[in-house]
Amino acid sequence: MATHSGRHFLQIPGPTNVPDQVLRAISAPTIDHRGPEFAAFTLDLLTALRPVFGTAGPVVVYPASGTGAWEAALVNTLSPEDRVLCFETGHFAALWRKMAESLGLRIDFVPGDWRHGVDPTQMAEHLRPDTAAVCVVHNETSTGVASRIPEIRQALDQAGHPALLLVDAVSSLGSVDFRHDEWGIDVTIAASQKGLMLPPGLGFTAVSAKALAANRSAGLPRSFWDWQPILDANEGGSFPYTPATNLLYGLRESLRMLDEEGLPNVWERHRRHALATRTAVHAWGLGIQCADDREHSATVTAVVLPEADKVRELILREFDMSLGVGLGRLAGQVFRIEHLGHFNDLSLAGTLSGVQMGLRLCGVPIDPAGVAAALEVLGGR
Amino acid sequence: MATHSGRHFLQIPGPTNVPDQVLRAISAPTIDHRGPEFAAFTLDLLTALRPVFGTAGPVVVYPASGTGAWEAALVNTLSPEDRVLCFETGHFAALWRKMAESLGLRIDFVPGDWRHGVDPTQMAEHLRPDTAAVCVVHNETSTGVASRIPEIRQALDQAGHPALLLVDAVSSLGSVDFRHDEWGIDVTIAASQKGLMLPPGLGFTAVSAKALAANRSAGLPRSFWDWQPILDANEGGSFPYTPATNLLYGLRESLRMLDEEGLPNVWERHRRHALATRTAVHAWGLGIQCADDREHSATVTAVVLPEADKVRELILREFDMSLGVGLGRLAGQVFRIEHLGHFNDLSLAGTLSGVQMGLRLCGVPIDPAGVAAALEVLGGR
Amino acid sequence: MATHSGRHFLQIPGPTNVPDQVLRAISAPTIDHRGPEFAAFTLDLLTALRPVFGTAGPVVVYPASGTGAWEAALVNTLSPEDRVLCFETGHFAALWRKMAESLGLRIDFVPGDWRHGVDPTQMAEHLRPDTAAVCVVHNETSTGVASRIPEIRQALDQAGHPALLLVDAVSSLGSVDFRHDEWGIDVTIAASQKGLMLPPGLGFTAVSAKALAANRSAGLPRSFWDWQPILDANEGGSFPYTPATNLLYGLRESLRMLDEEGLPNVWERHRRHALATRTAVHAWGLGIQCADDREHSATVTAVVLPEADKVRELILREFDMSLGVGLGRLAGQVFRIEHLGHFNDLSLAGTLSGVQMGLRLCGVPIDPAGVAAALEVLGGR
Amino acid sequence: MATHSGRHFLQIPGPTNVPDQVLRAISAPTIDHRGPEFAAFTLDLLTALRPVFGTAGPVVVYPASGTGAWEAALVNTLSPEDRVLCFETGHFAALWRKMAESLGLRIDFVPGDWRHGVDPTQMAEHLRPDTAAVCVVHNETSTGVASRIPEIRQALDQAGHPALLLVDAVSSLGSVDFRHDEWGIDVTIAASQKGLMLPPGLGFTAVSAKALAANRSAGLPRSFWDWQPILDANEGGSFPYTPATNLLYGLRESLRMLDEEGLPNVWERHRRHALATRTAVHAWGLGIQCADDREHSATVTAVVLPEADKVRELILREFDMSLGVGLGRLAGQVFRIEHLGHFNDLSLAGTLSGVQMGLRLCGVPIDPAGVAAALEVLGGR
Repeated sequence: MATHSGRHFLQIPGPTNVPDQVLRAISAPTIDHRGPEFAAFTLDLLTALRPVFGTAGPVVVYPASGTGAWEAALVNTLSPEDRVLCFETGHFAALWRKMAESLGLRIDFVPGDWRHGVDPTQMAEHLRPDTAAVCVVHNETSTGVASRIPEIRQALDQAGHPALLLVDAVSSLGSVDFRHDEWGIDVTIAASQKGLMLPPGLGFTAVSAKALAANRSAGLPRSFWDWQPILDANEGGSFPYTPATNLLYGLRESLRMLDEEGLPNVWERHRRHALATRTAVHAWGLGIQCADDREHSATVTAVVLPEADKVRELILREFDMSLGVGLGRLAGQVFRIEHLGHFNDLSLAGTLSGVQMGLRLCGVPIDPAGVAAALEVLGGR
Repeated sequence: MATHSGRHFLQIPGPTNVPDQVLRAISAPTIDHRGPEFAAFTLDLLTALRPVFGTAGPVVVYPASGTGAWEAALVNTLSPEDRVLCFETGHFAALWRKMAESLGLRIDFVPGDWRHGVDPTQMAEHLRPDTAAVCVVHNETSTGVASRIPEIRQALDQAGHPALLLVDAVSSLGSVDFRHDEWGIDVTIAASQKGLMLPPGLGFTAVSAKALAANRSAGLPRSFWDWQPILDANEGGSFPYTPATNLLYGLRESLRMLDEEGLPNVWERHRRHALATRTAVHAWGLGIQCADDREHSATVTAVVLPEADKVRELILREFDMSLGVGLGRLAGQVFRIEHLGHFNDLSLAGTLSGVQMGLRLCGVPIDPAGVAAALEVLGGR
Repeated sequence: MATHSGRHFLQIPGPTNVPDQVLRAISAPTIDHRGPEFAAFTLDLLTALRPVFGTAGPVVVYPASGTGAWEAALVNTLSPEDRVLCFETGHFAALWRKMAESLGLRIDFVPGDWRHGVDPTQMAEHLRPDTAAVCVVHNETSTGVASRIPEIRQALDQAGHPALLLVDAVSSLGSVDFRHDEWGIDVTIAASQKGLMLPPGLGFTAVSAKALAANRSAGLPRSFWDWQPILDANEGGSFPYTPATNLLYGLRESLRMLDEEGLPNVWERHRRHALATRTAVHAWGLGIQCADDREHSATVTAVVLPEADKVRELILREFDMSLGVGLGRLAGQVFRIEHLGHFNDLSLAGTLSGVQMGLRLCGVPIDPAGVAAALEVLGGR
Repeated sequence: MATHSGRHFLQIPGPTNVPDQVLRAISAPTIDHRGPEFAAFTLDLLTALRPVFGTAGPVVVYPASGTGAWEAALVNTLSPEDRVLCFETGHFAALWRKMAESLGLRIDFVPGDWRHGVDPTQMAEHLRPDTAAVCVVHNETSTGVASRIPEIRQALDQAGHPALLLVDAVSSLGSVDFRHDEWGIDVTIAASQKGLMLPPGLGFTAVSAKALAANRSAGLPRSFWDWQPILDANEGGSFPYTPATNLLYGLRESLRMLDEEGLPNVWERHRRHALATRTAVHAWGLGIQCADDREHSATVTAVVLPEADKVRELILREFDMSLGVGLGRLAGQVFRIEHLGHFNDLSLAGTLSGVQMGLRLCGVPIDPAGVAAALEVLGGR
């Protein structure tokens, strides 16, 4: 079909479908970022932002992407040549390693098969006396595998190791239960374009007291990313440089929406949608990249398929739906279905219907029972 | 489910889902309706409007609903006590009769069972020598039954009867093949909130030369609806009273979208979606209100079900989808599924999934094979 | 200047500058006009609408222009051949007369010079025993002259005459003190695109108990405009035909804005702006169309000038500002400056600056002291 | 006045008034940043971006503020302990110095009086053999003083010095004649929220071949800001991390608007507005911070006034206009009037009217002849 009507189905794991309320919010006129109206807005916003991170502490907002927030986490807490422990859970974990190297850190990189999360039982053996930080991707967007942060925290505690715990929650925050404070995370990294239902352009770091203390002695050069001037300015509702005003308007609205739905309801919705999706994939007779049932992502499902790219392209062309491409070493081997953010049962049904029809049009030998199986999950009450 | 996320599924047969492009277009600043910029805009708009009506003649645009356009059709062409032939094809036909009576016309009302369109073979017997106009609803929104206008025209021609042919195309225009000129229609009535993909607020009458001639002697009092001052003003790109500027902006955009998709593609899309919907209904084992296979509406399907209202309410509550209510004598006996306007295969799959899940949750004994059957239709190429 | 930047100055007396909040409100997705969400919205809206009319009674909202609301006022209260008293206060009064004639009423038309409002002292002599209605334009948009409704009411009362009082408040409502109930008005006619700060497309009639009683026996044919089915449907938060949903969204927002500013503050703002405008005109040495100091419009000022059209065109071209054209018998003899709706001191200063520069560029021999004089008014506290 | 109506006058030198077209553009749905539609969009955008920089080379777009773009310029071209020559022309020059120090560079800081630009005649004496880069703020937003880049270039050439020339064009780009290539600039730093008429959130660096060569050996650690991966990805229309999609939509629209007006017309408009503003300030009898007539900013005028803050606050409260605050050592000593971006003659007249009324209401002894004097400039043709 060369022509399209209706809403595009944007089912890539970020940017996700932005609610029309949020799009209208970001189209309000920009105002004076040094005036009293903006100061009041900012103070309210920064307070409203904390529950979604599960923190009572500060959340630093950058006019930047999630990648920028990663960089912020590193340069604010570490010094040149510091030793950092990373785990090869997938593409984004690999990118993080590369970033840390570029910034002059020494990386201990635990190899992985891109089908499992970080193994908490092996944490102790990878830690070294001088490990300064442990970096974990909570929800690997490239594989659909979620690492179990509370168990990782427990492993660090049992080892009695003082390393900082830095967690990338880019594709989980706002969609799954997340507790920065309770889980003893030192820096949580997030971005606007996933569960926060915004366009890209904002990066976040939630910061523990321990991380703030580390900040004082951290030797990596920094200016733009430096927490202290931002936290100082935030006290009075301002920023040390011009903030991304209109995206902040949208953030206020998306936080209001999450609060209205209720975070536990939001989490349960994502859990149900992930379950329905996996049920469909199993019914089709296809494989899922995540190999451990304790580690399925609630926000994205990676489906193993040699014809992945062909199927994605056909589905985009015929059904106007964008699916996630295989990244890094999974290029051409998986496609990813996003079920995340501003989403509901009927949109998921449409999504899975598109996948099922696309698989069949491509000649992939599947059992066309996937959608029906998913509807059994979605339609149960 | 008390809370909702994602896009509402608005599957009532009008207002339909308005494209975001159109919503943005109507949010442009209002301009001087007597200035040169608006005049150029209007001349272009009125030209661009003609193809969707299948006419080379004028289309009169009212800042009004479709009901207003009906009234315009009558008061512009008829005189008090004129005899008008109407057919009881459904709720809107019945409303039309009532309107004509209120305006002082004499109505010959051919009874019907709300399951068939106008029968062209019986036209001759209903016409009287002094029948001034024949009123037909092209696509009965309340029943999902479409009357066959070309055959009706043929019947009038064969009878050699000079009555005007007034056609309500409110829920068909822009979605199904429609040919005001070729089919010899004298007044086509339309509205903005269906196939034209706009919010409600604009009514239309396409006008034949014969209707314009009738206008000169028509004796019903009129001022706001009077064609002549509008047509005179339109010549120079203006209106005799303030037009609904922002909805006109949206109309320009929706006409562009229809043109980009291509009207024949638009029609074929609606045909496929209606077929897929009926396939699902049959697979569920439920009945369809339309009793003649030649007369299925391409834009709305009325499903016969005693529990219709209960199902609709559950679906709204649980799946955030609005379905059409039974109207008039069908109240509580049918629900209506809209597949019309800004719509696509995956949204239809989501829609039918919601209906299927809702039926089951309500305990209606259906075969849950409807969605799968519809996907066979949609997924064929 | 062939090119333009910045905001267009739309200083015609309607449509007025629509606030960006209202434009965003009307770009929200259209919803089911028969669903529970819309019903709740409508009930709230209809209640919120009353204070701006100064009424505790019903206000009927049409998907139509103000001209439509005029027609509604007449067909709902009068019968063919009824005698109606009209006053030639300007262009819109003349249009009203023409409309009433088209609808089959008999008009007593009191000639006027387009420089004065209705003279209450002469009311008694124009009333006839069978006068069914007295029609008055509260604020003549074409001349900038406001008639004194309370004194007109008093004159009717003193004459003990039972005629209905129909008042066109199209360009005053929401901008000047207006009291439908207290002033004993039977039908107040209004439209969306003036003081209500909306795009065109909504017409209003506020209706007294006496008008509702008249409605029961009024013999003019009507259907679309008929109050009774609308009032019946409004009871439950619905409409008898599809309402202009998105404009209603905008109306809710504009009512909120008027309430936030406070109606007395809104009225005072318009009074100050009209005074500053007249001060500028006097300082330029030009004449004002309104000849009675008790009757200056608070929303529009008509400036007498033989070169009016040349000046308007130059100002549009050079300064990107639209001014009101001379209408009817004032064509080419006045231009009109709007100071109405979503407006403030600095925008008025910009407006008057544009007029002053335009007059000079056209070679009109003025004293360029107008803006400075207006600033003395605006800058006083 | 406690209440406000009409448009806020945002006359701070950034963020500037965002055109409604741009606000609508940024409210379009976010799309797949890895899909074919986005790739085509990006390639077109990056090409359209070059003329406003006056370059045929690459412009790197960051999802960041202008401060981020500064950091990018430094870390991409310099190594730890590199010597950088900076000039104290105002607040932003001072901030730049501080940033360079934080990043580990050695700064030669030429003191200044915040009333002059960089003196080209003294360039030679400040250059040292090992000066790696010369940093100049083209248009000091805090003082309204513009440095003469071509003469600075000439001074470097005459000295035969190989230092890189890094130019902050944040508040001049898109508003005044700027020629990255012709003026031999190595890195031009810009941001979205000034002459590009966008909300904040995008930073830019235009990069010369010499800067790209320096990039290969530059030793400062970098990852997020690194040019090379961005330039590589841009070749195919993508980005190495998620770009700020919706702000890019707005950028495409603002570039279209600048192109439609014509860059030379845009520059001339800013020149006229700056002249009219200075004319008003002189007529009031007040002083201007810029002390050299060759160096007046075309985009912002800083007015010297001991009561600056009191006047600004009163103007915000009474006239709903935001003016620029005094920054750094000018805190409380100047207020700044922005005449920049999406702006026109009448908006400037409104702006100056607000300043004049505010000065008088505050009791500042001025001659109220400023607005009239400015109108003489604006009204001349």
